[in-house]
Amino acid sequence: MIEIISIGSELVTGETINTNASLIANALLKKGYLVKQITTVPDEKPLLEEAIARAMKRACVIIMTGGLGPTEDDITRQTVAQFFNLPLKKEATLAADLKKRYGEELETIEDQSTIIEGVEMIPNLFGTAPGFLLKRGKSHLLAFPGVPHQMKPMLEQYGIPYLAQIVPKEWFQKSLFLCLLYENGVDLYLRQLAANYPDLKYGICPSYGTLSIYLKIKARSQSEADKKLAPILSDLHAQYKEHIFSETDSKIEAAIQKQFLAKQLKLACAESCTGGRIGSRLTSISGSSGYFLGSLVTYSNGMKQKVLNVRPETIETHGAVSCETAYEMVEGLLSLSKADYAIAVSGIAGPNGGTQEKPVGTIWGAIATRNGEKFGGLLKPKGKKTRETLIDFSTTYILSHLWRYIESDIPPFN
Amino acid sequence: MIEIISIGSELVTGETINTNASLIANALLKKGYLVKQITTVPDEKPLLEEAIARAMKRACVIIMTGGLGPTEDDITRQTVAQFFNLPLKKEATLAADLKKRYGEELETIEDQSTIIEGVEMIPNLFGTAPGFLLKRGKSHLLAFPGVPHQMKPMLEQYGIPYLAQIVPKEWFQKSLFLCLLYENGVDLYLRQLAANYPDLKYGICPSYGTLSIYLKIKARSQSEADKKLAPILSDLHAQYKEHIFSETDSKIEAAIQKQFLAKQLKLACAESCTGGRIGSRLTSISGSSGYFLGSLVTYSNGMKQKVLNVRPETIETHGAVSCETAYEMVEGLLSLSKADYAIAVSGIAGPNGGTQEKPVGTIWGAIATRNGEKFGGLLKPKGKKTRETLIDFSTTYILSHLWRYIESDIPPFN
Repeated sequence: MIEIISIGSELVTGETINTNASLIANALLKKGYLVKQITTVPDEKPLLEEAIARAMKRACVIIMTGGLGPTEDDITRQTVAQFFNLPLKKEATLAADLKKRYGEELETIEDQSTIIEGVEMIPNLFGTAPGFLLKRGKSHLLAFPGVPHQMKPMLEQYGIPYLAQIVPKEWFQKSLFLCLLYENGVDLYLRQLAANYPDLKYGICPSYGTLSIYLKIKARSQSEADKKLAPILSDLHAQYKEHIFSETDSKIEAAIQKQFLAKQLKLACAESCTGGRIGSRLTSISGSSGYFLGSLVTYSNGMKQKVLNVRPETIETHGAVSCETAYEMVEGLLSLSKADYAIAVSGIAGPNGGTQEKPVGTIWGAIATRNGEKFGGLLKPKGKKTRETLIDFSTTYILSHLWRYIESDIPPFN
Repeated sequence: MIEIISIGSELVTGETINTNASLIANALLKKGYLVKQITTVPDEKPLLEEAIARAMKRACVIIMTGGLGPTEDDITRQTVAQFFNLPLKKEATLAADLKKRYGEELETIEDQSTIIEGVEMIPNLFGTAPGFLLKRGKSHLLAFPGVPHQMKPMLEQYGIPYLAQIVPKEWFQKSLFLCLLYENGVDLYLRQLAANYPDLKYGICPSYGTLSIYLKIKARSQSEADKKLAPILSDLHAQYKEHIFSETDSKIEAAIQKQFLAKQLKLACAESCTGGRIGSRLTSISGSSGYFLGSLVTYSNGMKQKVLNVRPETIETHGAVSCETAYEMVEGLLSLSKADYAIAVSGIAGPNGGTQEKPVGTIWGAIATRNGEKFGGLLKPKGKKTRETLIDFSTTYILSHLWRYIESDIPPFN
């Protein structure tokens, strides 16, 4: 069993999100190793000691991060030394190296070149605190600094190759990312599938309008895993053909970018209630300028009219939140830009502004093409949602409908 | 002692970052409660049982999240029931409520209306899985769903008020949120301040271009805390008058909304490299339609020309990433909209697209008013930044400059 102990007061108080543990676990997962527990403790000796003691009972590999730095609150090295009853010693070669890299005036040379006697040192090329490896009984304890950009290369260059020598690989992982589906529908199918394949485990994770399916297969090698996974993947692809948008990236916007770049298409958006979220998510990916022309966030009715040429009568008769307005928004977009596809969203994200006729969550989407096709419909997030999630869900849904329409020619909003 | 147990296989494998635990710990911190350990386990009975058993030995409050959903891998409810030797039972009122909210066809009504006998139920208004409270000996166990937007309101409306009844408060917290300042400048001043007030502790947390200062004061009651804090707050307000934008909300966009609504002003934006992030952040706050007219995300040069009337010569001579282009963007905005203030951002968010002359991170901002004032300058995030953080920093910076200009008449970009 592999465990992580994350050390840092700022981690348990929530002031820093523990991305380091996820980074390690995910890097190991990709190599076929499953982390089974993450224990996060503050820089406090008794809690750290107990965490080490418990982990030693369960795990053969313990990866510790944090608390190796020079400041007063860093106690990991001392605590480990005392726990295993090992002396600390000055390491002259380490001090020399630090002097070379940081200059004679580095105040913390003394502290940062002190190591536990008998451990194997793991060099830190991007900072002062070295990591170390300590073997005790059946347990292998690896300690890295808590700063992600220092830890990551140490994990990759030292940690993972070391793991490969001592931990037999058992489980191999494969991900699938799906849109326009609900968790419970997929769960039933996967339950049946898992019944047919005893070496298969799965997890389903809904994420603001998309689903991630994680398959884990028991195997002795990657090629055996691939062989075992092949019929399962082919089953799933047959069943969810029009929903699986990626096997590598959970973001529908990444699938859109791939699709638009491959087909050399251009996209323009018009947003109202999403307020820029569609543009923001699309452009969060490097290279989006290759297909994304822009997103006109016309939040006020005046801007809808002035920028997108939505007719005042349309807004007066049907309201800004209507299929008719969404239609005129995409039409305006196509005449303003050279886009091949234009999408628009107008709705009520709440928590205020809902009416009997148009309650919060009434969100219209429209998709139009340069060739004159035009579709409109409600984007319907299930259940009660907050403003934030309504914005995120409707962004995911309109992009999902667009992706599926281009990929499989299925009319959007059905 | 307060502990968190986070349950979910996707959390230990690193596929999902455990933001939930940070969110809880941070919400408690703000109310004066310190979380001392976070244990993250997969959806596996033996590991969850051990985690509960160990936490029961240390903590008086255990907050558990995750594993309450309807799918097969969700085992929290069953595991807790077996651990404490309590039967499960169907709760008819819960089933009726789920039917009312999700319709008769909800397949998981059976599962989601099963609760542990003798617990106090915590209603989930944004999902199907209810939370619960279980008292055993000196320990209070609170279980919430793992989906942050479901968990958060349950924690706020139920968890924190419950905690206030059972955990004595020792430390009282006050926050200040500042813009256009760096951590090390503030740290020195606070260090001196803390030396004068022995009951004061402080933390500084930089967050994508703003700073949060958390003051903790030792007191026996809120009124004693207020009395002790008064001279400290007055010191800080005198020192950082033009930087403190809020004592309640860490988001500069919330300060902008408050300011614009109070002064009955209207705002319009034009975005290039931020891709919609400015609009998205402004509209994430309910009520933004009261002052925010829209944000024209003109990502391509064609859209800049067609929508905002930026002259082709300007782009040709100075480039799209230039003060001149940013100026023409705000001018275009003012003539297109009825905004009192117009802001624009154009830059290189990278990681590609940088040149010797204009490296990644070159981001121009412009602010113009209906009265004819116009300012332009570079938004300069310090240090090496990723695409994501460059977008977030420049959004924060342009909004900070705008807020300070309106509030204190300090010319932007100085």
